[in-house]
Amino acid sequence: KSSFLSIYSRLKSDLLHDSAFDFTDDSLQWIDRMLDYNVPGGKLNRGISVVDSYKILKEGNQLSEDEFFLASALGWCIEWLQAYFLVLDDIMDNSHTRRGQPCWYRVPKVGLIAANDGILLRNHIPRILKQHFRQKPYYVDLLDLFNEVEFQTASGQMLDLITTHEGEKDLSKYKLPVYRRIVQYKTAYYSFYLPVACALLMNGENLDNFVDVKNILVEMGTYFQVQDDYLDCFGDPEVIGKIGTDIEDFKCSWLVVQALERANEDQIKTLTENYGKSDPTSVTKVKEVYKDLNLQAVFMEYESTSYAQLISSIEAQPSKAVQEVLKSFLHKIYKRQK
Amino acid sequence: KSSFLSIYSRLKSDLLHDSAFDFTDDSLQWIDRMLDYNVPGGKLNRGISVVDSYKILKEGNQLSEDEFFLASALGWCIEWLQAYFLVLDDIMDNSHTRRGQPCWYRVPKVGLIAANDGILLRNHIPRILKQHFRQKPYYVDLLDLFNEVEFQTASGQMLDLITTHEGEKDLSKYKLPVYRRIVQYKTAYYSFYLPVACALLMNGENLDNFVDVKNILVEMGTYFQVQDDYLDCFGDPEVIGKIGTDIEDFKCSWLVVQALERANEDQIKTLTENYGKSDPTSVTKVKEVYKDLNLQAVFMEYESTSYAQLISSIEAQPSKAVQEVLKSFLHKIYKRQK
Ligand SMILES: [Mg+2]
Ligand SMILES: [Mg+2]
Ligand SMILES: [Mg+2]
Ligand SMILES: [Mg+2]
Ligand SMILES: [Mg+2]
Ligand SMILES: [Mg+2]
Repeated sequence: KSSFLSIYSRLKSDLLHDSAFDFTDDSLQWIDRMLDYNVPGGKLNRGISVVDSYKILKEGNQLSEDEFFLASALGWCIEWLQAYFLVLDDIMDNSHTRRGQPCWYRVPKVGLIAANDGILLRNHIPRILKQHFRQKPYYVDLLDLFNEVEFQTASGQMLDLITTHEGEKDLSKYKLPVYRRIVQYKTAYYSFYLPVACALLMNGENLDNFVDVKNILVEMGTYFQVQDDYLDCFGDPEVIGKIGTDIEDFKCSWLVVQALERANEDQIKTLTENYGKSDPTSVTKVKEVYKDLNLQAVFMEYESTSYAQLISSIEAQPSKAVQEVLKSFLHKIYKRQK
Repeated sequence: KSSFLSIYSRLKSDLLHDSAFDFTDDSLQWIDRMLDYNVPGGKLNRGISVVDSYKILKEGNQLSEDEFFLASALGWCIEWLQAYFLVLDDIMDNSHTRRGQPCWYRVPKVGLIAANDGILLRNHIPRILKQHFRQKPYYVDLLDLFNEVEFQTASGQMLDLITTHEGEKDLSKYKLPVYRRIVQYKTAYYSFYLPVACALLMNGENLDNFVDVKNILVEMGTYFQVQDDYLDCFGDPEVIGKIGTDIEDFKCSWLVVQALERANEDQIKTLTENYGKSDPTSVTKVKEVYKDLNLQAVFMEYESTSYAQLISSIEAQPSKAVQEVLKSFLHKIYKRQK
């Protein structure tokens, strides 16, 4: 992780010396601070998994310094992509904190300039790719890949915004197919498929031959989000590092979707009256319905079924190295507590 | 123009059938309405100039149906890019109207979802390029071009936001080099260089050989923005179709930059006290300073000097076709009243 972090400084420095823009001192300072605030502070799982996956695909051979740098640069591009989406998402959701600090747009003197900063974060990705990959045979595939995944993420975000954004607070839209579609596009492609696809491209593969791998990873991403939703309510805040607010925020969470599928008329009434309210009494009532419906057991059941299905799809893969990549992803998240 | 407009419907329909996203009925409707509201309602000068430039570069040969479609598709990509920047710019500037209707984010039920719609507009560009240009030898150059120009535009926007965004309302930053740099990056690259660069790529050229052409177009873009600033104050609202508010908005306009360079102490005081205020008395006082300083004559002088310089750089170009492209741009804007 520390060697991965050290690549960040190099990429940042390249961006601050980009000859396509004539920087003033103020703009250098602005970008420097904006990057440090938004890019490296996450868990870096997505970024590091490019390096890990590429190592496995190379079948145990140590990476050269250059290979490590390139795989890390692609990993950082994913972290940049995530930063871009989070900065804008926090504006749209009117959020207060992110990663234990105020959201960027709430920092004094930033405000809505944050929207353009999000755009800049996004624009840094092709700058990094051009500088380091322009001569690679897979350069155009990298551009296509990032473009497609960004499009899918933004489309998932749209779906989320237009189906779940308040206005009427209508629980009747919260159904499993809706939930799955949002999660698949908004989260799974960029968090799970993109890192592996980057590693495959670096390894000289044609992504058209990895449609099954994509589907497995998207499924894993969905499983990951279900866990996230479960832990938001039933996880230990001490372990997760934050207190969940999905109920207060009227989120289209897996839990509420499952509850609505199973609830009787009374319970539906309780949910309708209390979901999306921020007073503790309402939250407690919702959680009681979840417990009465035994959603903890429903989750355990989902978790083991998912796991078994994923393992069997993974073992149907022809390449042992690819199997190993997929299993390493799965084992990082299976039964996680945070 | 009507044949150019007809291409829009085809591109929109392709986007609504993009297999990379599993659209719901609601999301199809949303995108459809969002595109119609934001993309085709402008003057379309930038888009159409791709087609015009390409025709000239082909030296009088009629375009085939396919060539017309491709040149128009690139033109529309520029219109999409512009729509993306305008949607986000209006949010950041807290603007009210755009092209004679409420800004998109002010439309009921849209609100900050508009930020993600801006992102989607941007994401449509690589979708269009991939669908229609993936097999062309210049595909990767097109991607690089759009990426670079978007980066420059977003960087210019940052410069504008961090130097001119209120807070303290400090006129001392409004100097000619600052002004020129903002305009060059924020407007000139995408409005003037990008259309010609698209046409050159379609014509099989290597953009590395057209650095002079780029510089000429960026200069022309600067001249265009100076006119825009001039007309905002001294143009006829009946002809322009809107009433200028640059003074009220504390804009870093060419006029205030020129005024500050020429003003005596009293006039500086008047500007400092009245620039950026929305009451009509303040606006009138600012305009009086402009008139006392004879900024109309300063502008005429700038206009003819610029014109002469541009013509002489254009005539130094080796290719007659390229000269003709540049002159056609220049003559579209020289002494324009709107
Ligand atoms: Mg959010
Ligand atoms: Mg959100
Ligand atoms: Mg969550
Ligand atoms: Mg504006
Ligand atoms: Mg603005
Ligand atoms: Mg103007």
